[in-house]
Order: sequence, then C-alpha cells, then structure tokens
Amino acid sequence: MATDLDIARAARLLPIQEIAARAGIPETALEPYGRHKAKVGLDFVAEQERMSAPRGALVLVTGISPTAAGEGKTTTTIGLGDALNSLGRKAMIALREPSLGPCFGVKGGATGGGRAQVAPMEEINLHFTGDFHAITSANNLLAAMLDNHLYWGNELGLDARRISWRRALDMNDRALRSINAALGGVPNGFPREDGFDITVASEVMAVFCLSKDLAELQQRLGRIIVGQTRDGRNVTAHDLKADGAMAALLRDALAPNLVQTLEGSPALVHGGPFANIAHGCNSVIATRLALRLADVVVTEAGFGADLGAEKFLDIKCRSAGLAPSACVVVATARALKMHGGVAKSALGAEDVAAVTRGAANLRRHVQNMQKFGLPVVVALNRFTSDTDAEIAAVQAAVRPLGVEAILCTHWADGAAGAADLARAVQALIAGGTASFEPLYNDHMSLQGKIETVAREIYHAASVSVPPPVAARLRRFEEQGFGHVPVCIAKTQYSFSADPALMGAPEGHVLPLREVRLSAGAGFVVAICGEIMTMPGLPRRPAAEGIGLDAEGRIEGLF
Amino acid sequence: MATDLDIARAARLLPIQEIAARAGIPETALEPYGRHKAKVGLDFVAEQERMSAPRGALVLVTGISPTAAGEGKTTTTIGLGDALNSLGRKAMIALREPSLGPCFGVKGGATGGGRAQVAPMEEINLHFTGDFHAITSANNLLAAMLDNHLYWGNELGLDARRISWRRALDMNDRALRSINAALGGVPNGFPREDGFDITVASEVMAVFCLSKDLAELQQRLGRIIVGQTRDGRNVTAHDLKADGAMAALLRDALAPNLVQTLEGSPALVHGGPFANIAHGCNSVIATRLALRLADVVVTEAGFGADLGAEKFLDIKCRSAGLAPSACVVVATARALKMHGGVAKSALGAEDVAAVTRGAANLRRHVQNMQKFGLPVVVALNRFTSDTDAEIAAVQAAVRPLGVEAILCTHWADGAAGAADLARAVQALIAGGTASFEPLYNDHMSLQGKIETVAREIYHAASVSVPPPVAARLRRFEEQGFGHVPVCIAKTQYSFSADPALMGAPEGHVLPLREVRLSAGAGFVVAICGEIMTMPGLPRRPAAEGIGLDAEGRIEGLF
Repeated sequence: MATDLDIARAARLLPIQEIAARAGIPETALEPYGRHKAKVGLDFVAEQERMSAPRGALVLVTGISPTAAGEGKTTTTIGLGDALNSLGRKAMIALREPSLGPCFGVKGGATGGGRAQVAPMEEINLHFTGDFHAITSANNLLAAMLDNHLYWGNELGLDARRISWRRALDMNDRALRSINAALGGVPNGFPREDGFDITVASEVMAVFCLSKDLAELQQRLGRIIVGQTRDGRNVTAHDLKADGAMAALLRDALAPNLVQTLEGSPALVHGGPFANIAHGCNSVIATRLALRLADVVVTEAGFGADLGAEKFLDIKCRSAGLAPSACVVVATARALKMHGGVAKSALGAEDVAAVTRGAANLRRHVQNMQKFGLPVVVALNRFTSDTDAEIAAVQAAVRPLGVEAILCTHWADGAAGAADLARAVQALIAGGTASFEPLYNDHMSLQGKIETVAREIYHAASVSVPPPVAARLRRFEEQGFGHVPVCIAKTQYSFSADPALMGAPEGHVLPLREVRLSAGAGFVVAICGEIMTMPGLPRRPAAEGIGLDAEGRIEGLF
Repeated sequence: MATDLDIARAARLLPIQEIAARAGIPETALEPYGRHKAKVGLDFVAEQERMSAPRGALVLVTGISPTAAGEGKTTTTIGLGDALNSLGRKAMIALREPSLGPCFGVKGGATGGGRAQVAPMEEINLHFTGDFHAITSANNLLAAMLDNHLYWGNELGLDARRISWRRALDMNDRALRSINAALGGVPNGFPREDGFDITVASEVMAVFCLSKDLAELQQRLGRIIVGQTRDGRNVTAHDLKADGAMAALLRDALAPNLVQTLEGSPALVHGGPFANIAHGCNSVIATRLALRLADVVVTEAGFGADLGAEKFLDIKCRSAGLAPSACVVVATARALKMHGGVAKSALGAEDVAAVTRGAANLRRHVQNMQKFGLPVVVALNRFTSDTDAEIAAVQAAVRPLGVEAILCTHWADGAAGAADLARAVQALIAGGTASFEPLYNDHMSLQGKIETVAREIYHAASVSVPPPVAARLRRFEEQGFGHVPVCIAKTQYSFSADPALMGAPEGHVLPLREVRLSAGAGFVVAICGEIMTMPGLPRRPAAEGIGLDAEGRIEGLF
C-alpha cells in the first residue's frame, strides 16, 4: 500500500501563484518560499480587513478524546475542504503549523494523510517558513534581556524568586524542564531557577496566534509579565524595552502561510499552539483573512473537543469576534472501541457492545459543542476492518442528540470520500441554526471559570484548588485581570486529568496544580494534573528513523 | 546624512532571478525566498561540481585587529566585488550570514554599510532563510536525544561526567553559559552539568560550513563526539542514531543563499561561524560554487587576520582544497591611531606619530599573510577626518613590505570608490605570484600546531599548557585525531589573549585553558584566555532600540 509519503511525492503540485489565484490572492501579495509555499503579505491582509467584511461561514473540526487507534481530525479538515471545493463552494482550510518536537518524538508529521494532505509535507513538517523559529527567538530574546537586566544592576527591582518568564525551544527535551541557570560565577550572572517550555506552549505563540495585525502584536508582547518586584508589582516586556525587538523578530512570521492540499485547495497553515498545554488553534490573522476570501472556512482545533474546541470557542472566537456556523466532531469506530475498553491489539475483531460503550465519549463531546450553540455533525472515518454493525452502533448513539454520523473515506478517496460530509455541513450552514455563545461570561471569577469548564465540559464533580493557587487567582483579579478567559492545560486522553480514564468519566476531581497569568495573550493558564509544558522523547524516538535517501530526499516522516 | 538603513531602503533591488542570470544560475535552479533572496538548489550545485572545474581566482579580504573605531571589512568585500564587476570582470561575493546574537547586542547588522551593502538588509540580519535556526535545531536535537538516551537506560554506557556536547541558541545569553539540567526528579532525567554556546560557535555550524554536499554533511554529523563512556570510549551522534534526522533538518539550509549588493552584484551569503570562537568563514559549498561561476570570488574572514584569515587558510582552504590568489588587509587610519594609543574620543585630531605606531598592527597582519604565500594589498578605508599626512604614514608603513595601501571610498561612492583597489587586486591575480601553503602540516603534534600559530601569527613567547590540557591533546592523538588542524578561540582585539594589548605585542604568553575535539568538523578547538563561547548582552543592548515603525518597517538595525 502506498504510504503518505509515497502519495505526497507522487502528487503534482501546482505553482503557489495558481493556488493563490484560486483563493483570490493576487501574485503581488505573495512572498514565495520556494515554489509551493508563500506568505500572504500583511499589506494585502490589512487591505482585506479594511475593504471587506468577513463573508464566509466558519466550520470547526474537532474530535473525540484521542486514542492510540487514531481518529483523523486533520485529514477530515482537509478532506472536507477539498469536498466543498469539488461541490463548487469556494472553500479554504485554516490549519496549525506542525511542531518539530512531536515530529521527532512519537507523532511523525502533522500534515494529514492518505489522499487528504497538505503539501509539501516534508517542508511543512520541518522548518516551513520559519515561524516557530521566530517565535522561539522572540521568547528567548526576552529571557536574555531579563537576565541581562539583573546582571547590570536590576533597575526595575525584579525579585529573582518571582520571575515567571521561561525560555523556549521547539524540541521535546525533558532535560530542560527544570534547570538552574546563570551558574559559574560573576561573569555569568545571578544564579536562579529556570526552565524551558516547548515553543508551542509559550505565551509568545499565543500572542502571535491571537493578534490580528502588527500593532496588536506589539501591544500584546509589551503586556507580557515576566515577573514581580519584591513588593508584588508586575514587570512587563515593555518595561524591559524588549517588545519592539520581539515584534521585529516576528514581523515576517505574522504573514499567513499559503499552501495547497493534494487536490489543489488553498490552505492557510499558520500558528500552532498545542491544545493540551496551550490554546490549540491556528492564527486569528489567517482565519480572518480566509473568512474574507472564501465562502466556507474549515478550521481545526487540537485534540479532543474538551480541549481544542473549548479554547477555540472561549478564547479565540471571544477575542477575535468570530462565530462558527457549524461543528464537525471526528470519530472512528476503532477509537470508540478503545474508549469502550478494548485493547489496541484486539481492535480487529468486531465488538458492537464496546463501540456502543465507547460512544459515550463521542456523545459527550457532541453535547458539549451543542452547549456553545453550534449545530453538529459527526464525521466517521471508515477503516476497512469496521463492520456495518459497528458503524450502525455509532450512528444510533448520536441520533438521539439530533446529530448525523456521516461515513467518510477521504483518506483513501480524497474529496469524493468526504462529499456526503460536505453536503451535511452545507445543510447545517444553510439551516442557520448556529447561535454561538461562549460558555462563561467575562465577569465570572477566574476560579468560577475554571469550575464552569470542569463541570460543564469535563463533567468533573469538583476542582481541587490548593490555597496558594486560589490566592494567586484572587491576586490576578485584584491586579485587574479577572475579566480574561482561562486556558486549561490537561491531558488530552481523558475528560478527567487522569489519562487512563477513557470513555465518559463522571464525578472525578480536577486537580488544579498551578496558574500562570498570560497578560499578553489575555488568559490565565490553569495547569491540571501531571501535564507537562515540555514533552519528552519516547524510548525509540521517531528521529532515529528520519534521514536522507541517496537522492537527498527526507525519509521517515510519516 | 543618509543612514545605512536609509540607503538600503532607497535602493531599487532587482528580482533575484535577474541577479541569478548575471551569475549564470538558471531560474530553474532557484528556490525563491521572497523576491530578493533565493537558495541555489543542491542539484545545480552538484551538477556544477561534476561538470566544471573551479575557474575563478579566490580573493580573501581580512583586516587588522578590530577596534571601536571600525575598519569596514564587510563593506570592502562588497565594494571590491562591485568594483570588479564595474570594471568588466565577472565577480561574485561570498560572505557569512549574520548572527542574531550580536544583532541584538552591540553590533547591529552585518550586511555592510553606506553604498556597499548586501540587501535586503533587515531580512538578512534577522532570520534570512532560516539556516541558523536549522543549525540550532540540529544541535539541540542531538542534545535531546542524548539526554533521552540516558533517561531510557543508557545502553551505550555514556558517563554523565564526560558528556561534552552542549546545547546552542542564536542569542547572546550569558545566563545559559553554565547550567544544571534535568533537575526536578525522575520524570525529568538525570541531573548533570550542561550549558549553551551561541549557534555560530557550535560544531554543527562548522560541519555545515565545511561540507561540500549532503553526503559529506551526514558523515561529518555522524562523527561528532558527544562524550565518553566510563572507560574512555568515544560516543558519537551516529551511535545515538541522530545523524539522519540532523541531516534532514539541515538539508534545505545547505543550499547556498543568493542575494545582491546595492549595485547588483551577486552575493552568496551562507554559513557564519564567528572567527574568535570558531573557524570564521562562509561555507565551502558557496565558495566552491562561486569559483565555478565567476572569474573572481571575493570572500571575507572574520575579525583580524590572526583569527579569521589564519583559520580560513589553515582549516577551510586545507579541508576544501582551495588556494587563494590574493589577500586584501583592511585598515583605517583612525583604527591604527587607536592601536597607537589614542582614545576613541580623541580620534578627531591629527596624530601622525600614533598612526605610525599603530601601523605595527597592520604590518604584522600583512607579514602573516605573506607567510602563507599570498600577495597582499592593503585597503585603506578613508574617513573624512583623515589627513593626508596620516594616510601617507600608513602607506609608508607597508611599502617596505612590498605592499601598496590603496585609498578606498566605497562606503560613500560605491564601486567607483573601490576601483583602484580592484585594479590592484587584478594586478596581484594577474601577477600569479600566489603560492599558498598552510602554516603547519598535518603531521605536527596538536600542541605543536597551537604553538606554531602562537609563535608565527600571534608572536607569543610561549603557550602555557596546563598538564591536564596537554594530556587531553595527547589523548586525542592516541585516538587517531592527531592529523587535524587547530581552531584557536581567542579575543579578537589583540594578537595576545589580553584584549587590552593593542598594536603588535611581543613576548606574551598564550594561556591555553581548554581543548575540545570537534571530530565532525575535523579540528581541535583550543580555548585561550577569557574568551566565551556564549557572549553576553551589553548594559544597553541594541535590542532596546529595535522596533517597528507605523508602516511595519524595522527600525534600529544599523
């Protein structure tokens, strides 16, 4: 069978100028990066913002809680976009950029699969147009300027024990989670505790993804809080005079990246926070541009709907004034079987009862999306081993919610395999039943917001809040940050904070461990359970199998 | 007066395809990065290597020991290339890529100045085509895989105390020089001492710059030694199975970058090790390509000739089989006045005696270049405050060495200001007197090589070698690495290891502090005196003045 890489290599890509023309982007607005990638100039983006209102319908693709069986959320986003185009709608796709970290860890690439891919896959998966490197540099410039400020006399009076700004790398590297820095004596500065997060978890990434233009980007960067003085006064990136240079580092990166699917649909791939440890959706600037250019914009939020979709709706849509018209929840019978208690090794055998048990996970995600006022359709990615009875069990599970589960085969068949899904999505858009509202309002207390998400979305019985963490939340409110939404960092494998609790657990306690104020991004990060903001590599990292073949082509990205 | 930025912005750049055509590079061989930058495809590079022999004359531009007065080595390289083209020669320029670190520190940009610049300056100075980010990623992937190997059971038996591989960032950040990593308990790995070097000092940068193709790149990466086992056996990147993924990360970066000067000369800007802490010259692949395309290739080696030029000749030319035809040593009367003991604040007043005293620095650099068998000309960059008597003093100082000092005004006048220099260089090439030989042969002991450079180039009385360092050098020889050249890391401000000893000091002792084997790069790094492989930021970093103007243009890069 042809691998994703074989299919990608066999594809004849169109010059990016042609893809741009399809999207209504003139060649003069493009900054090409090679022949098949381009940035869309910020001048053109600004002109579109000035000249036209958003006209497209926004469709969110999200999924069940992920399992080792795989669900295919990115392929569904791509397949749906291709299918809408093949049905004569003008559709654009808005995805996140892959991170190098998981690429070298367990995950391989993040550009879809089968006949539903964005291309060129090797380049998008590795450095692409350098956006994440720019974000890493901006993050670490701020850190370097901070330690340099301490070194040269600390005029701002930063308390070294109260520094919250961490360094970042786009790498899975557990050894950098917790370090002692500035060791070695006077020339190297004042020793202090520090650590690195993966770039996709950094506040600079969030700021980047939430800014609609360069001016907003620089303002948000300036508001980033790096730590406090001894008497509790916040010190910002602007106080350190770092915001200008950070914005300069990010200037070119802020222009959205245009690529194509294997079927020639235009796709904006831009920004890329993870949904488990960050806010989980592509850039506001790309989504807003797509909504001005296309009739339908298909976008994806990371991991399960409890993480990516909730943050997409409560953080991104709230901040950027977006309102989705429909929501697609992606599932597979195999994955639901795992949620129903079947081991990965036993997925080959039919087990309708397990599918029905596991469908509780799907049902809850669907109901959660309905709580935001969104009409929902389920995309059921078909595997050859799925039996008709298993498929029927999934369809039966969601029918009482007023939701259809549409079989999809875009992995094997491209656009044709998602045509039914596209028709269903079109019907939801045409129905006009969406009445989007965020889950909680701005005025609720920060702890109340965390508890609301835990109760309504995770079905937790309660949130355990250590007293110092509660005090810290109150302090944020006193400082005038009570109005911001919350960004909950939690395992993606369960509605709870325990990755082993699959299905649709009830009555669990969400252990809130730590809160961080991201004043630039405009949210409070609430870290729950054992979640790490810097992943590690597995025993046999994917990197061991990545290399060049005799013609200099990259092998081992999958 | 127009600033460098004003001049750069006012310039009308040609499409990069036109520049490529001037250089004999077909459009099909280009990977454009925006409209004014492109990578030259590795297929084209390989075809040139196969089809044609190098035909161009190689001209090395180097300088006196740098001072706060500024010398203008990069502007001279660019001005000379422009002048040769304006005289009807087919000339190409081969420069290093700027590093972000100094850009945010004291130095500002590194793309020349006045009318002798490569463009687009903001982009070249910031992320350019992402090469340094790729190098940083490859370096840190190896580090992450190393710590991951320890974490998962350490099958190779690495001794955590004998790990020599360090992490890297393209940032001036003294707080990362010395760290304790992997703190925080079992999930974060085994705590150990570690640190970061600036990317330009990393062995991956050296490997990148010394490899003529992808195959050599991957082989060299595989040979990198990351540490030893308890019984002293070397462990390599290949043992960790990291070389393939590192090569994949570097694949696109290895293609040379083509840009243009403000006068439309083609310039390859590729690779960028610093000369004080690394080997200090642009990539072999770019230089070899340029020598196949042009009649004359003008290239630059960093800092003074004691550092950059010595390494260019003893490391790069030796490794890549290059032989320069002529050497330009850049000086200014102002800088020589400083070498003669005048403070920066007093440079406005004529002081012929100080110029004559300081010219000892210039004379020694000229004589050093002659020791390599190269014909030399001095490029004397004229400032308006220079008096005729001062100029005459410089010319008189080098005349006894059989060397002309040619007045240059390319900063103000572009190509026309370097026409005399271009004629003098052409005469040296036409004279055919070059008979290049490295300073020492491969078979000399490693300590002997260090002592030879110290004696012949630095005029040191001796080298102080702590017994453990001497033992380490012998150990490298026992392991079969005795044949490699040495890469001496030393302050750029003096022939000695003491930055305050300007002019042409004699009889000093070179304090060898530490040696590191770079088996992938194929040299031994000898760290002398207080030199740091990770710079710090100054009290008022240039970053504080960098930002975006109302039109989103970058300000403060100079």
